[in-house]
Amino acid sequence: MVEESVVKEQQIEGRNAVLEAFRSGQTVDKVYLLDGCQDGPIRTILREAKKTDALIQFVPKQRLDQISKTGAHQGAIAVVASYRYYDVDDMLEFAKEKNEDPFLFILDEIEDPHNLGAIIRTANLCGAHGVIIPKRRAVGLTATVMKASAGALNYTMVAKVTNLNDTIKMLKDRGLWFVCADMGGEVMYKQNLKGPIGLVIGNEGNGVSKLVKENCDYVASIPMKGDIDSLNASVAAGVLAYEIVRQRMN
Amino acid sequence: MVEESVVKEQQIEGRNAVLEAFRSGQTVDKVYLLDGCQDGPIRTILREAKKTDALIQFVPKQRLDQISKTGAHQGAIAVVASYRYYDVDDMLEFAKEKNEDPFLFILDEIEDPHNLGAIIRTANLCGAHGVIIPKRRAVGLTATVMKASAGALNYTMVAKVTNLNDTIKMLKDRGLWFVCADMGGEVMYKQNLKGPIGLVIGNEGNGVSKLVKENCDYVASIPMKGDIDSLNASVAAGVLAYEIVRQRMN
Repeated sequence: MVEESVVKEQQIEGRNAVLEAFRSGQTVDKVYLLDGCQDGPIRTILREAKKTDALIQFVPKQRLDQISKTGAHQGAIAVVASYRYYDVDDMLEFAKEKNEDPFLFILDEIEDPHNLGAIIRTANLCGAHGVIIPKRRAVGLTATVMKASAGALNYTMVAKVTNLNDTIKMLKDRGLWFVCADMGGEVMYKQNLKGPIGLVIGNEGNGVSKLVKENCDYVASIPMKGDIDSLNASVAAGVLAYEIVRQRMN
Repeated sequence: MVEESVVKEQQIEGRNAVLEAFRSGQTVDKVYLLDGCQDGPIRTILREAKKTDALIQFVPKQRLDQISKTGAHQGAIAVVASYRYYDVDDMLEFAKEKNEDPFLFILDEIEDPHNLGAIIRTANLCGAHGVIIPKRRAVGLTATVMKASAGALNYTMVAKVTNLNDTIKMLKDRGLWFVCADMGGEVMYKQNLKGPIGLVIGNEGNGVSKLVKENCDYVASIPMKGDIDSLNASVAAGVLAYEIVRQRMN
């Protein structure tokens, strides 16, 4: 259903531009550096690159000249992935097309790209219509997320919104109910999770933030019988999502 | 309930011993190497260490002498974590003590330590009595597993067995039923998953192996509505485990 490719590659050339790409937190998939070059700026880029998942390749000048599109690489070229984000309206439209009640995931500050990828994978398989993430304090779509999603990112719409609470309110006006996972709530098996629904999953360490929780209609808890505090965030998302699937099948 | 610490640290000293530790697949958490030393054996250790998760520290001779317990480190000291494994009988005993039907996880060649950790975390929280892994072709208990388990490894028994099929047969004689997750099976919500049960989770890429599947009493499937093949292994384990929890609560 997501027809166009969600991934676009962009090439950034020149020392300052490449360094800035790393420092601003852009997702650099690959960086080419001039082999044997030991000067300060290149070493700084190398140091920044090593903090990330970027693949680092040292290549001779001739090869770098070939790769360069601007002819002004100054010994450094970065390949940056940019993913296409969707609008929340696209997701509602998609649910309508399928003649289904909307089922959306709302991720409140998920930080680990492996978790984000696994959650997008789950969203795809459980029949959700999209995944909403906040612009700030959360991991965005990166190559690691794509990999962890096992390709589901190619089929599942992801929207990035400025304010999760505003989005939740807007979606409530459109008829969605919101349920979040939290220890305090009633056990999920006893709640009615049918109908148009938004499933809110909290941050790995801190859970769902206070205001978001207040905006939810239900707080659902997963039964916890053990000695530790909480499930892995992507496992919790899966367990709740499939309780929704079960109830929708009845 | 698991009273003693499951983790013991062991120090391995000397070039051959350290190299052997890496080559035999022991879990080296940390390796200290003599700073500035560039000879063959140390470079070989370094190369092997880089293939693993081991933390590599270059330290001056004086510090290495301090760390050394044997006084014969030859420029290389490895710190190896050894985890205590339990017997399957311990798990059955634990279930009996709690006056509960045994509920065990059987992991058929899980390879990713993050998945193994997340599954142990889930096993702890859903009230399972233990996790069984095979000796071969699977990740064992490592520092990464411990971290991904969020400490659950301290509370959940893990047994390592030579032959999963023999163990399954033995447990069948003790009254357990076995269910594995696979695409071909009937949807899990419609199956009876109460009573003494072993939940079999397959390998990340290949699923449950043929013989193990044949030894299972039920094949349960998780409804898949999406565009890709399968859930993340730890998510699938969580979804099935909590369906068992739900049925046991009724």
